[in-house]
Amino acid sequence: MGPAVILVRPQLGENIGMAARAMWNFGLEELRLVAPRDGWPNEAAEPAAAGAAKILKQAKLFKTTGEAMADLSLVYAATARSRGMIKPVLDARAAVKKMRKSRGKAGVLFGRESSGLANQDVTLADAILKIPVNPAFGSLNLSVAVGIVAYECALAEGLARPQEPKDRPAAKREVMALIRHLEEELDQAGYFASAARRKARTQSLRNIVHQAGWSVQQVQTLRGVIKALSGNRKP
Amino acid sequence: MGPAVILVRPQLGENIGMAARAMWNFGLEELRLVAPRDGWPNEAAEPAAAGAAKILKQAKLFKTTGEAMADLSLVYAATARSRGMIKPVLDARAAVKKMRKSRGKAGVLFGRESSGLANQDVTLADAILKIPVNPAFGSLNLSVAVGIVAYECALAEGLARPQEPKDRPAAKREVMALIRHLEEELDQAGYFASAARRKARTQSLRNIVHQAGWSVQQVQTLRGVIKALSGNRKP
Repeated sequence: MGPAVILVRPQLGENIGMAARAMWNFGLEELRLVAPRDGWPNEAAEPAAAGAAKILKQAKLFKTTGEAMADLSLVYAATARSRGMIKPVLDARAAVKKMRKSRGKAGVLFGRESSGLANQDVTLADAILKIPVNPAFGSLNLSVAVGIVAYECALAEGLARPQEPKDRPAAKREVMALIRHLEEELDQAGYFASAARRKARTQSLRNIVHQAGWSVQQVQTLRGVIKALSGNRKP
Repeated sequence: MGPAVILVRPQLGENIGMAARAMWNFGLEELRLVAPRDGWPNEAAEPAAAGAAKILKQAKLFKTTGEAMADLSLVYAATARSRGMIKPVLDARAAVKKMRKSRGKAGVLFGRESSGLANQDVTLADAILKIPVNPAFGSLNLSVAVGIVAYECALAEGLARPQEPKDRPAAKREVMALIRHLEEELDQAGYFASAARRKARTQSLRNIVHQAGWSVQQVQTLRGVIKALSGNRKP
């Protein structure tokens, strides 16, 4: 089973349809839509999907990027631009390899046509999936970007999937709860001195936690750690 | 210099524009058009090309596939369907590799949107470049097909290799210092209730921290987090 394709705030129904077509061309089936600009369903999507209307019919709609990835444990943010963010960067091939190895469900975020992913969406991902575009012209059509990732998935399909028993990878829901817990405690500890620092620090912390690839048990352990460190704080 | 992209009897100007965009996204510049259905130039092409109008302006027009490839020495026919033809079949990656090695100029033929390449066009090519589509839905959008071949060219080119984040990965020395700091604070917080628990918990914590792959800056941030959480603890 390939990764979920998550289109974040897509603009044109036609592009959603073309992305669905590119997915199904390479055997990807799970489409998720975060707050499409023109609502959903969108009648421009189906003609553009050609024979891939079933992908559109199965598509799930979400209000936020966080909700759309809550059940996933490995998420990449597809982007052609460098973000100057401290986050691992993989090419499509390496990212697909990792997703195949992951025991939990994986997904790839794609941004809107006009401007790509917002930094706050990129922050939620484990790592950046970078498509090696021409530095002079990086503006990829959405369906071409989705098609390239789907194509890499199809290429990788032949490989055997190593089975590891043990603990399952934490879902993003669990990782986000860990982050909330940490931020609450840090807030109480006065860590976020000013609003400007809060923004920068929150972003670094989320990057730190999302990239780590922890299991459910590891996340539980860390919840205990936060509790222990902050438990006896003076009121 | 990458291969020429030869669109054989393309139908919609919009698709020609999108193909040009996908070419230029990955640094391919040479577009050749064989008998486009709606004539050339086509005013629907430029808006669809987004920032790649220059590729359209440089495009060369030909009456027949034979004329369009007359100066090339290695030509592949891109197709998703098997042709039952006695002709070598390569995947995109292998075909791109051969084109790069070729001392003469190379090109790739792409067929019309509705039906792909005619067998007589395929016959003119040295070999088939096969894109591994879903057997249940092989109908690729022209720009996605062109995009995948162009992407493989860019990968082979080493163009715009994914950049590492600015920050360097933390050395184990730094990671171990982080762990020591964490353990000291947890010790003071009474987290390691008994000797047996200390051993098990220390081991999980070390696994958690070592696997995360943090950078120097991220480790610094986490030192601050530990300090903030434990700083005000009651003596």
